[in-house]
Amino acid sequence: MSFKPISEIGEFGLIERLSRIAAPTLKNKPALVEGIGDDCAVYRTGGTSVQVSTTDLLVEQVHFDLLTTPMHHLGSKAISVNVSDVCAMNALPEYALISIAVPKNLPVEMVEQLYAGMAHAASRYGLAIAGGDTSSSPSGLVISVTMTGQAPEERLAYRKGARPGEMVCVSGTLGGSAAGLKLLMRERSIMIDLLRNNETYDKDVMAELQEYSEAIRCHLLPEARIDMVRFFQEAGIVPTAMIDVSDGLTADLRHICRRSGVGAHIDEGRIPILAQARTIADEFQDDAVAWALGGGEDYQLLFTLPKERYDDIAGNREISVIGEILPEEEGMLLTDIFGMTIDLEESAGGFDHFGEQ
Amino acid sequence: MSFKPISEIGEFGLIERLSRIAAPTLKNKPALVEGIGDDCAVYRTGGTSVQVSTTDLLVEQVHFDLLTTPMHHLGSKAISVNVSDVCAMNALPEYALISIAVPKNLPVEMVEQLYAGMAHAASRYGLAIAGGDTSSSPSGLVISVTMTGQAPEERLAYRKGARPGEMVCVSGTLGGSAAGLKLLMRERSIMIDLLRNNETYDKDVMAELQEYSEAIRCHLLPEARIDMVRFFQEAGIVPTAMIDVSDGLTADLRHICRRSGVGAHIDEGRIPILAQARTIADEFQDDAVAWALGGGEDYQLLFTLPKERYDDIAGNREISVIGEILPEEEGMLLTDIFGMTIDLEESAGGFDHFGEQ
Repeated sequence: MSFKPISEIGEFGLIERLSRIAAPTLKNKPALVEGIGDDCAVYRTGGTSVQVSTTDLLVEQVHFDLLTTPMHHLGSKAISVNVSDVCAMNALPEYALISIAVPKNLPVEMVEQLYAGMAHAASRYGLAIAGGDTSSSPSGLVISVTMTGQAPEERLAYRKGARPGEMVCVSGTLGGSAAGLKLLMRERSIMIDLLRNNETYDKDVMAELQEYSEAIRCHLLPEARIDMVRFFQEAGIVPTAMIDVSDGLTADLRHICRRSGVGAHIDEGRIPILAQARTIADEFQDDAVAWALGGGEDYQLLFTLPKERYDDIAGNREISVIGEILPEEEGMLLTDIFGMTIDLEESAGGFDHFGEQ
Repeated sequence: MSFKPISEIGEFGLIERLSRIAAPTLKNKPALVEGIGDDCAVYRTGGTSVQVSTTDLLVEQVHFDLLTTPMHHLGSKAISVNVSDVCAMNALPEYALISIAVPKNLPVEMVEQLYAGMAHAASRYGLAIAGGDTSSSPSGLVISVTMTGQAPEERLAYRKGARPGEMVCVSGTLGGSAAGLKLLMRERSIMIDLLRNNETYDKDVMAELQEYSEAIRCHLLPEARIDMVRFFQEAGIVPTAMIDVSDGLTADLRHICRRSGVGAHIDEGRIPILAQARTIADEFQDDAVAWALGGGEDYQLLFTLPKERYDDIAGNREISVIGEILPEEEGMLLTDIFGMTIDLEESAGGFDHFGEQ
């Protein structure tokens, strides 16, 4: 028997194989509306609303680095990324269960800071931390957050549901998280060099980070767009398809296209890029649009709406229309600012935990 | 500022501190019936039943060792320990979300075995695996399972609710898991010695393990007592307090006593010990009763009932009455087989992840 390392099939390949194994269990619960394959699972409990639930794992050295991540921020982010998945269903978050595996030598005070960040974020989003589990960890810190939320069933937005001719929309700006991460990674290597040479950390370098605080904030303290869910509610809008931008615009648009059985065309010039991300990209001689397409972790909402609903969103400056849904056979296309059309299916995009980095 | 390592306050000390930080968020959701401090969180969703939810973390080298744990068994156990928490509320399991952090060099086939074990257990318990998350792990395997279940609110059993004069009851037998673990740990050191000397593993040693398969099964493949929840339902019984025996009889009885504001008296001679555990204890010159009291991971149900309900359980050979609930000031006592009464509050008991091992 030959064994295949996970890196050979990648994260999405692994998820596909595991989903196939878990799929037969779905029929055990007829009240399950949506199983594996969307931002949240959806199930009926007999009330007027349905329940949605999601879970996210944050692993030290994979998702975060304690040298550049304050514990309070990390706690807040662990909550926000799960709220973002609940919002991507057009639902509101209710309860979080939190598990942590903690290295024995980590000071209690740091774990308390982590929880303070979680509790602060939870109250801001109006949800309750209802339980959890703790364990020691032989190596790094691991955080697992599971969140449930609710929405009237007719208000739910799935990844499936986009139809040709509809608008592709995105909230806020993109590219900020990748830009912030670039800065933090550069800072990290400076810090490590200084530590190695027994020198102290230069405050002047911090001053430059201050200047780019918006991008760093996008990475360390992302905000889930619960305000958009409330806007949809007030405007009487239900997106025909929705996802949160966690893997990058290309990969997340691909999720909508695959699940909806459609293609899409987006216009580079209309992608809302964080202004600071452009400045930082210039400094790194990199491309902020590439960060928006492939960087991920922006936690904005990417959604589709029939063109007839344009007037309902036109007044909301937080929403950009960046393209249009196409029939499946036309594929996923991007027209760049020079008018060149690129096939997004062939371009790289999205973060693979098991890929070579 | 001085920092305190977690080992100084222990697992329960850490949980207490973190609970205090998370507590203010509980008031964000008035539909939350029970937050941190029981086997599950409990919340209303507007249906006729309430929802319960629980989460458990399994960390390589803390909760399991891949040298002695087949992946299929590990998957099954990860499901069972969560089902056990749901059963401890007298509820039935419905949905599981599963997150795993996997070392990159782990073969895909092993992860598939893990999931096959989970799916198999899920179907046996009648629940659906509805989603999850995957990540790479820089060191060991980490498994996080979150489970929701449901029950009519009036059928729920909490840790609080035990009253003086009531019977203390336990399902099945205890001590088996600790006995199985002892055997596996001995086997593990033999295997490591053989590997070091480039020798092959002796099949004759395996034969001895076969003889003790029941104890090993208790440790590697525990079964949640969903059959007891069904029995309670059929017999029209709602335990006044209930918990699953995951930390050991002493620690779990203490949880009931603390939350109910009562004391208890148990009778060593009436504690149901797995017969094989006694034989194995003799072989190790150890004490099977100590394993039952302090070993944990037996996943039996420990519960209390008014004496008037004795006739309802008398015919069920899976239930042992092991003692009686006392007023709080009388403490937690054990009368041993020689008639000596010991104060259980002063004895060791329960597993502390952050303690010295």
